[in-house]
Amino acid sequence: KKRPKDISFSNRGMSLEDDLNDSNITYLTQGRAVIHKKPTPIQIVQVDYPKRSAAVIKEAYFKQASTTDYNGVYRGYYLDFEAKETKNKQSFPLKNFHQHQIDHMSACLNQKGICFVILRFASLNRLFLLEAADLLVYWNRQYQEKEKKSISLKELEKNAHEMYYNFSPRIPYLEVVDQLIEDDVHNIE
Amino acid sequence: KKRPKDISFSNRGMSLEDDLNDSNITYLTQGRAVIHKKPTPIQIVQVDYPKRSAAVIKEAYFKQASTTDYNGVYRGYYLDFEAKETKNKQSFPLKNFHQHQIDHMSACLNQKGICFVILRFASLNRLFLLEAADLLVYWNRQYQEKEKKSISLKELEKNAHEMYYNFSPRIPYLEVVDQLIEDDVHNIE
Ligand SMILES: [Mg+2]
Ligand SMILES: [Mg+2]
Repeated sequence: KKRPKDISFSNRGMSLEDDLNDSNITYLTQGRAVIHKKPTPIQIVQVDYPKRSAAVIKEAYFKQASTTDYNGVYRGYYLDFEAKETKNKQSFPLKNFHQHQIDHMSACLNQKGICFVILRFASLNRLFLLEAADLLVYWNRQYQEKEKKSISLKELEKNAHEMYYNFSPRIPYLEVVDQLIEDDVHNIE
Repeated sequence: KKRPKDISFSNRGMSLEDDLNDSNITYLTQGRAVIHKKPTPIQIVQVDYPKRSAAVIKEAYFKQASTTDYNGVYRGYYLDFEAKETKNKQSFPLKNFHQHQIDHMSACLNQKGICFVILRFASLNRLFLLEAADLLVYWNRQYQEKEKKSISLKELEKNAHEMYYNFSPRIPYLEVVDQLIEDDVHNIE
C-alpha cells in the first residue's frame, strides 16, 4: 500500500470522533450505510420539572460505556467499532481499551458481526483500521509476555489497514470494510 | 396461533423496557445475541470537576433520540427495533412514533437490516412484533385517509406477530426473528 502524495485532506485539528461522525453523516446521506455513535451513558440523579419548560437534569454522572462507540448496518452486515487516539509515536497502548469492550467485541464476533477498532496516532496523523480478531491476539499477548502492553506501529503497518484522510467522507473506512467482506467471501469459498 | 393457557409469566408490573432489557441480558448470557438499549441522548450544558472526585453534570437536557431504542447483532444479521406501549385497548396510536424514527427504520431496511417495533397494550397485557415494512404502510396511510391515525388491534392480530411473556427470556422475540429470517430465505429461493 502506498501513501497518497496529496495530503491536503489531512484532518485540520478535528478529533477522530468528529471526523468519524462527519463520515457517518456522509455515508447516511449517500444512502451507503447507517452508522451512529452511541450516546454517552449518563447516570441521572436529580431532575427538575419547571412549569411550562423542559425538564432540567440538575445532578448526573458519566457512566462507563459497556459496549463500543459505533455500530450500525451496511449491506446487510452488522458493523461495530471503537475509535481511539494516542499521542505516542511508536506504539498504541492497550490501556486505551477496557475488558468490557474486548468482551463486547468477542461477543459480536461470535454473532458474525464485522468488528474493528480505528486507531489514530495524533502526532503522526496516521490512521489504522485493526480487525477485532487481531486486536484480541494483541490483547491476550499482554498477559503472556512481559513489556508488551502495546501494539507497535510496525505491527500495525503490517497487520492493520492504513487509511488516509479524504474529502467526503473524511475517513473512508467502508472501503476497508468492503475488502474485509470480499476476503471473507473468498475464505468461505 | 393460540394463546398459551399458562399466563403465570405475564409481566408483573414491569415496564416493556425493563422486560426487554432483561431479555437482552438473557440472550447475551446465553451467547445467543448481542442486543443493547442505546443510552438516552443528553445535551450537557454545565459540568463541575471537583477535586479528587468524579465530574458532576450540573445542567443538562434530554434530547430527542435520532434513531430507535435497540440494536445489535444476531446470527450475522443486524437487528434494530423500537419499543412502545399504549394504554388504549382498541388501537395503537401512530403519534407514538416520530418521523425521524420512521426515516431511520427506512434507512436500515435499505441496508437489509431486520427492523421492527415491539408494541405493548398495557391494559390488555398483549405484545406484538410488527415488521418495519408493515409499520411504514400504516404510517403512510395516515396521510392518505382521514381518521386512520392508528393501527387497530384487529390489524395487528392479522398482520403482526403476537408474542407471549415467558420466564427467561421474558419476551422471546428472537423466536419471531428466526421466523422472519426463515421466511426471507424462502422468498429469495
Ligand atoms: Mg472511543
Ligand atoms: Mg421506546
